[in-house]
Amino acid sequence: MLTPGVWGVVATPFTGSTFDLDEQSLARLVEHYERLGVTGLTVLGVFGEAAQLSTEERRAVLETVVDAVELPLVVGATSLGAAPVVEEVRLAQQVAGDRLAGVMVQVNSPNPHVLAGHLRAVHEATGAGLVVQDYPLVSGVSISADALVTALRDLPFVVAVKAEAPPTPVAVATLTAALDVPIFGGLGGLGLLDELACGAAGAMTGFSFPEGLIACVEGWRNGGYQAARDAWLPYLPLVNFEQQAKIALAIRKECLRRRGLFPESSVRPPAASLPESLHEQLERHLAAVR
Amino acid sequence: MLTPGVWGVVATPFTGSTFDLDEQSLARLVEHYERLGVTGLTVLGVFGEAAQLSTEERRAVLETVVDAVELPLVVGATSLGAAPVVEEVRLAQQVAGDRLAGVMVQVNSPNPHVLAGHLRAVHEATGAGLVVQDYPLVSGVSISADALVTALRDLPFVVAVKAEAPPTPVAVATLTAALDVPIFGGLGGLGLLDELACGAAGAMTGFSFPEGLIACVEGWRNGGYQAARDAWLPYLPLVNFEQQAKIALAIRKECLRRRGLFPESSVRPPAASLPESLHEQLERHLAAVR
Amino acid sequence: MLTPGVWGVVATPFTGSTFDLDEQSLARLVEHYERLGVTGLTVLGVFGEAAQLSTEERRAVLETVVDAVELPLVVGATSLGAAPVVEEVRLAQQVAGDRLAGVMVQVNSPNPHVLAGHLRAVHEATGAGLVVQDYPLVSGVSISADALVTALRDLPFVVAVKAEAPPTPVAVATLTAALDVPIFGGLGGLGLLDELACGAAGAMTGFSFPEGLIACVEGWRNGGYQAARDAWLPYLPLVNFEQQAKIALAIRKECLRRRGLFPESSVRPPAASLPESLHEQLERHLAAVR
Amino acid sequence: MLTPGVWGVVATPFTGSTFDLDEQSLARLVEHYERLGVTGLTVLGVFGEAAQLSTEERRAVLETVVDAVELPLVVGATSLGAAPVVEEVRLAQQVAGDRLAGVMVQVNSPNPHVLAGHLRAVHEATGAGLVVQDYPLVSGVSISADALVTALRDLPFVVAVKAEAPPTPVAVATLTAALDVPIFGGLGGLGLLDELACGAAGAMTGFSFPEGLIACVEGWRNGGYQAARDAWLPYLPLVNFEQQAKIALAIRKECLRRRGLFPESSVRPPAASLPESLHEQLERHLAAVR
Repeated sequence: MLTPGVWGVVATPFTGSTFDLDEQSLARLVEHYERLGVTGLTVLGVFGEAAQLSTEERRAVLETVVDAVELPLVVGATSLGAAPVVEEVRLAQQVAGDRLAGVMVQVNSPNPHVLAGHLRAVHEATGAGLVVQDYPLVSGVSISADALVTALRDLPFVVAVKAEAPPTPVAVATLTAALDVPIFGGLGGLGLLDELACGAAGAMTGFSFPEGLIACVEGWRNGGYQAARDAWLPYLPLVNFEQQAKIALAIRKECLRRRGLFPESSVRPPAASLPESLHEQLERHLAAVR
Repeated sequence: MLTPGVWGVVATPFTGSTFDLDEQSLARLVEHYERLGVTGLTVLGVFGEAAQLSTEERRAVLETVVDAVELPLVVGATSLGAAPVVEEVRLAQQVAGDRLAGVMVQVNSPNPHVLAGHLRAVHEATGAGLVVQDYPLVSGVSISADALVTALRDLPFVVAVKAEAPPTPVAVATLTAALDVPIFGGLGGLGLLDELACGAAGAMTGFSFPEGLIACVEGWRNGGYQAARDAWLPYLPLVNFEQQAKIALAIRKECLRRRGLFPESSVRPPAASLPESLHEQLERHLAAVR
Repeated sequence: MLTPGVWGVVATPFTGSTFDLDEQSLARLVEHYERLGVTGLTVLGVFGEAAQLSTEERRAVLETVVDAVELPLVVGATSLGAAPVVEEVRLAQQVAGDRLAGVMVQVNSPNPHVLAGHLRAVHEATGAGLVVQDYPLVSGVSISADALVTALRDLPFVVAVKAEAPPTPVAVATLTAALDVPIFGGLGGLGLLDELACGAAGAMTGFSFPEGLIACVEGWRNGGYQAARDAWLPYLPLVNFEQQAKIALAIRKECLRRRGLFPESSVRPPAASLPESLHEQLERHLAAVR
Repeated sequence: MLTPGVWGVVATPFTGSTFDLDEQSLARLVEHYERLGVTGLTVLGVFGEAAQLSTEERRAVLETVVDAVELPLVVGATSLGAAPVVEEVRLAQQVAGDRLAGVMVQVNSPNPHVLAGHLRAVHEATGAGLVVQDYPLVSGVSISADALVTALRDLPFVVAVKAEAPPTPVAVATLTAALDVPIFGGLGGLGLLDELACGAAGAMTGFSFPEGLIACVEGWRNGGYQAARDAWLPYLPLVNFEQQAKIALAIRKECLRRRGLFPESSVRPPAASLPESLHEQLERHLAAVR
């Protein structure tokens, strides 16, 4: 099982007009995460722009992260078919070795039997523990929480679920009641307080202030709703600002840049870059939580 | 032009297993709004379940609101074609008379010329001032902010825009820079702080604590970001909780019920009712802002 | 039960720059249908642009059709909520009286219990027999064929299903195996041959040559696949041409115009009009089947 | 420029319960295509289930095809980001060498400048000629035909466009009028007759009877509408049958199997397999054109 807590979803910094991988900044970023005390890191996820990287770049990202920190890693797979997913898993296993806490695989069918077969095929070919990501906005696949329970019920190699199909608190409640694996919230922390209340084991997401996620999750554990709320409240305006449709990635990378973690905040096309009209407000939000 | 500020979007209370219109509770609700000091009310909007009402019920809703309060009214039209919209507008004019501050019409085409033609046809047939609602999740129509500017630029009878196509702050910035009409945010206030920063004239939405919307908008006017943020922060966990996809309507009606404004919180099918798993957290959120 | 065969879905002719209802042409059109020997007519359906008509215009359409022909009528309801559907049904009952063979109601939920409740509510309020239309492109609601069976199994007042969720032949096969009501194909006849092979009771659609639909359905009854195919083949290029996404309505109305049934082929905005680039090919297709 | 005519989109045969690549059947399939006289082959397209293949399998598919036939090849790229597309292009160049007539790249943005930048980046990194595929159902990206013209106008390395955004004949007309590259239709030939009439250079698709596509395209060249129609008519019922949403791939592979080209017709999950209810009709359609 994946350790409950906060798993930081790692951004991928680029440099120059050709958007070259900036390994040095990546190392600095994950070292920062480690210092903050995250439970682990999620590498090559959606927020890491994994679908925009070549195989060689994916390997370089993994190597950089493995070398820079000691944290356990979840590595994302981008494809929806078993054969290319297996290829991605093998790369992760090769580079991350026993640092690999799990491989994150997308829900690829609304049909629980097809999904279970897919996960089984990936596990049987690789032996990897699987984090199942239910993120319809990215995968294009919508599964009901009940069908997800049916799919995952008898798969002992599933080590966690990342629930990103709104309304996520309701999904978290259904999944935690029926499955014995930890369920994590994502979506930049937009529903974190409610996901925790519904039984979430923590957050796995890329909010630019992971210390906020940590404070909220620890608040919940130690003091319940009120403590989590108090810890989370100062960050919430920035959370909502970051989690804007279409431009969330660009906003968060710019936040990381202004925090001094990246020299450049560019995103690879076709992702949208940060609209000029948001610069001033971004600075205000940052000033309020620094 | 529509008066800047907070326009409350009015819910429609139902009673019994046949979901009959509860006019008495509706009157109490809008009187509550008036006491809170909203700028005006938006009746027969999406949050008012207008698409679930018969013509007779729409008339009854309008009559009840007109009788109960003195506030200016925006009345929503549900259809996307000119002929049925005109029919809806005429009903609104008949009942609301000079209380009618504007009729809210949906964007019905991504093509600015088609949209302008539609708005012109509705205005020419009725003489009504129009609030243009850009809400792709409901209308099924996506228009770019630039195309919306093109459509609305030369329409003197447009009195406001309700911008509900995320990322809404970016849309608000584009629209306020190019048009001379007030632009309102919606979506339960999820992006209110950022919409105000980008030039929004206020909020037109159905959050269960309109006093929070008012405090935030007045905070912005009087003290800028910091004051608006301070005023809004306590409400933000509830805002995010309410604004959950698919169940937002059910959550908000239950919040209104627990505030004592409705005796029943049922929503007309096929809208989803409130999941059991959220009851406890709903109560926590309410307790925190009461 | 609805009589098997070909139910013609009636277009609504407009005239002039204000798209006024052209009742005279409408009468001529349905008289033409009657002469061709259709089983019945479907009025105020999607192809009839019902969502673009005012209540008064809907009434005028119904009255015109009732007066012009002796055929049994299915009348479409546009709304997805019970209260406005009931209002539409009552208008149909008032005007069509015992000529009303059924009222066509859209699937409004993927949840079979919600859908069954909706249909029951409409029937209980009106006593009408219901034709259930499963047309996700228009309703925005996708239901599986299995869930549709669950919803309809115990509803004795359902008199037919119109299956328009591709792949339609598979849906027809599932529905005919499990339900005792006739299942009709639609979608302009694009899959008619296969729908008949899978058990369809006929076609309910707006192809501009209803005689082709009739020849195909009768071919199937009397001579099976080969006869139906032979009868249908000459029309198939026009069927595919007409059934083009976004412009199907404009193409078909222009075909009706060139057949001499309409003086004008305009469609009400925001529907797209006929692209200039298709005029020549349209004429070729018509010449080939005249 | 890509040679006008019929480019066969090659299916990928699998064998056994693990869906192993069946190279022998693949060779037989493309030899069959060559004997039929297709202009060229499109390998690793959507119909080739490229998104379900590992890198090693993609290489094996390319090698098999290159070895088996002498035809020019278009090789599909599956990714939407420049870096992984470049990786796919390099594999194609490595294996296909000067047999490579073009690399097929998906439209990845509705914004013409973003799309042009993407294509330029891919071309500059590889030198490859590009076939631009506009297939929103697969890419999830919708671009208007006008924006596509803007994007492609000044890109001399674009060698063809594959227009698969319905209504495709209208898109073909717009693109052929404004661009100097050949425009091909796809979608199983559903609109072939109309695409040719609007200026298409031919078909690039995976219909199970490529001889039908060839007969239609040659008919159009030599005898115009009537000849093309006469040639195409016998195949049209099968075209419509094959092109059913969600199951098109499974139907076509079964058609190829029954033609003796494959020993097995399985598709890799999560693609749907052939519904039992269609077997009999599939056989009828095949019997009619054999």
